[in-house]
Amino acid sequence: MQRTSVMNACVISIGNELLRVSSVDTNSIYLRNKLLSVGIPVTASFVVPDDAASIIRTLRFASEDCNLLFLTGGLGSTPDDLTREALAQFLHKPLKLRKELLAKMENFFTRRHLPMPGVNKQQAYFPEGTEPIDNTIGTASGIKARNQDKLIIALPGVPVEMTEMFESHILGELKATISRRGQSKFATGRINCFGKTESDIVSILGEILSRNRNPVVDCTINHGVVSLYIVAEANTGREAQEMVLATRRQISGILGSVVYSTGEASLSQVAGGLLSAKRKTIAIAESCTGGLLAKLLTEVPGSSRYFSRGWITYSNQSKSSELAVPMPMIKKYGAVSPEVAGSMAENACRKADTDFAVGITGIAGPGGGSKQKPVGMVYISVASKDQIHTRKFLFAGEREAIRYRAAMTALNMVRLSLLQFD
Amino acid sequence: MQRTSVMNACVISIGNELLRVSSVDTNSIYLRNKLLSVGIPVTASFVVPDDAASIIRTLRFASEDCNLLFLTGGLGSTPDDLTREALAQFLHKPLKLRKELLAKMENFFTRRHLPMPGVNKQQAYFPEGTEPIDNTIGTASGIKARNQDKLIIALPGVPVEMTEMFESHILGELKATISRRGQSKFATGRINCFGKTESDIVSILGEILSRNRNPVVDCTINHGVVSLYIVAEANTGREAQEMVLATRRQISGILGSVVYSTGEASLSQVAGGLLSAKRKTIAIAESCTGGLLAKLLTEVPGSSRYFSRGWITYSNQSKSSELAVPMPMIKKYGAVSPEVAGSMAENACRKADTDFAVGITGIAGPGGGSKQKPVGMVYISVASKDQIHTRKFLFAGEREAIRYRAAMTALNMVRLSLLQFD
Repeated sequence: MQRTSVMNACVISIGNELLRVSSVDTNSIYLRNKLLSVGIPVTASFVVPDDAASIIRTLRFASEDCNLLFLTGGLGSTPDDLTREALAQFLHKPLKLRKELLAKMENFFTRRHLPMPGVNKQQAYFPEGTEPIDNTIGTASGIKARNQDKLIIALPGVPVEMTEMFESHILGELKATISRRGQSKFATGRINCFGKTESDIVSILGEILSRNRNPVVDCTINHGVVSLYIVAEANTGREAQEMVLATRRQISGILGSVVYSTGEASLSQVAGGLLSAKRKTIAIAESCTGGLLAKLLTEVPGSSRYFSRGWITYSNQSKSSELAVPMPMIKKYGAVSPEVAGSMAENACRKADTDFAVGITGIAGPGGGSKQKPVGMVYISVASKDQIHTRKFLFAGEREAIRYRAAMTALNMVRLSLLQFD
Repeated sequence: MQRTSVMNACVISIGNELLRVSSVDTNSIYLRNKLLSVGIPVTASFVVPDDAASIIRTLRFASEDCNLLFLTGGLGSTPDDLTREALAQFLHKPLKLRKELLAKMENFFTRRHLPMPGVNKQQAYFPEGTEPIDNTIGTASGIKARNQDKLIIALPGVPVEMTEMFESHILGELKATISRRGQSKFATGRINCFGKTESDIVSILGEILSRNRNPVVDCTINHGVVSLYIVAEANTGREAQEMVLATRRQISGILGSVVYSTGEASLSQVAGGLLSAKRKTIAIAESCTGGLLAKLLTEVPGSSRYFSRGWITYSNQSKSSELAVPMPMIKKYGAVSPEVAGSMAENACRKADTDFAVGITGIAGPGGGSKQKPVGMVYISVASKDQIHTRKFLFAGEREAIRYRAAMTALNMVRLSLLQFD
């Protein structure tokens, strides 16, 4: 993205627990989305421990590159809440007691018929020259500070308090500042693709992915889904939005049916939406994916309209007894074969009396592979009343990756079948 | 936690998409947990855009405070993959083509009967004097570099590749280094609980969760699983390990069968392990969970030893035709009833001829709820040859949360049944 010099932000999340356990720093996710929506890109995000020196170093580092610094956490009443102190040192200002805040805090406890614990008093100390930000939920006020041309906003780490304070006291002012400055506006868009590798898509799109373009297009891959993120920068929001739409149309035109959605819609939502719109029903017969494909199809609300039933036929015996796959076929071709995948799909379609059915059989590993049928080999069949389409795949990775790729590929085959189907 | 000066790490996650959209930087979560488990605390975490200057600045800043720097992302084949270039500039070394890696990459594509896209060639360029880290899943090799006393490890951003490479090529060396250095040692432990809320567990454990303790115990909750993370610090690894074990024994003694595992084992691994050890088999009949329970059971390698088959009987018709649930029963009690859950489990057990079967029926929402049977109401039955145990639940949250809680609760019921079963 072309770097705007006017206003960009960073988020500094403070807390040992953020570095120690599997917690997710949801505050930075929230802030970067909110800030981008008003046209302020977050260009860096930091997680630092409850350590004053680290907080000060990070404030200095972030100040070099950003003019809006958000801190979350470290404003509580325990000894490891050090944001107030670190900010005071960074600003070279003493901490001063704000009596009106102490009174307010005492009132907070009095209303709850509780004595105020002594430790809470530290929450009424603020670096000289800074402003408190009101917290209507808890006792941790925020801090608004200015340092040269930088604006620093410290908010508590408790998400419900942080978001409430951001929406009530910060967002409006930022919007006003942005519109006063006449800073450029941003718009974003997203395109999701399945069925081609990231490298293929990069080769096909060529110059569209160049870094010096506006809109800029970023490419990410996750379990076979290649997502393209479009960010446009313009003088007005409307102009930026139009630039995003034009680029989206251009990319969709080039990639064709590889694009399965724009925006947030998942592959199962898209496949489900097509089934629903075309009033078609589906049944699923899974072996190696073990229920994952059915799970993906049924995670969409309202999927009972098109999803009839599923079988997870893990053993050969169950393929024969539940889905009438002939035992001689399994013996002759093996459970992992195009014949068995086709038979699973065809018989599932017939037994469930649906418009479509999918059959999946493969080797998810880590065991069970051979030279002829290695781990990752998967056959997927999509059957309708009058045809069966079977494809062979060799998926890379470990068990979960192979299973997920197989299920997603099956969803995509269903989607492509439906696109051709009237 | 007391700061150790000898070896500490930071994680630098690279990618515009990490700053722009609602993606969660799971790589840094993974790395900080893995690193802490071998005694290396992560003392800072950064997210930076796909911008060489930002990466270089962050490498410099992080080098001041950490001696082990992990970078993830930016090693792909697109023009915005700039980690190689940034690292070369940071190290003041030119990028050199490594022919053996180019050949390996060409081979990667040849094996898949594909031509290698020209854009992939950049992945064979490495800063002079650095070592490649083998990637067996994709084309993005990692980079291992030394800069004065710092060790820098760059890994791809794709989680499945990153974790595989970390486990295969990095973890062992770090363990060896740590044991050579004789640094103040950490040991960590984890206890996973299911069946009680976080508040219940906090109340029961009381003082054990106090912040001023060593070992310190952190509590997190994820989809009904309450995990307790124990971190002990001592002069020797053995001493730290003993402290962890003592705390683990103490907590396990208090919580009893609520604890389903210590360490990494998931509920499906534990339930599967019990089935396997007791040589029992299982079948699954699901309605509202739509395949999720079968998916969880079969994600464990080797699950074909105990998992026979599954039915996803979404429609009433399929409950009757596939599982012989009597239509009059469905009409009389409704599809979401203890009778139907019991019938699903009992008939699945009989049809599949397994030792156990599970039946799940409920209302996952958002639609389909009523005053008498609200969204979140789920009946779960566990049947064995001679008994059926059915329980009613009311799960909170949205569709996915309800489905996941229901499937996990079913796994836990299977686990508890097996504990009583000889």
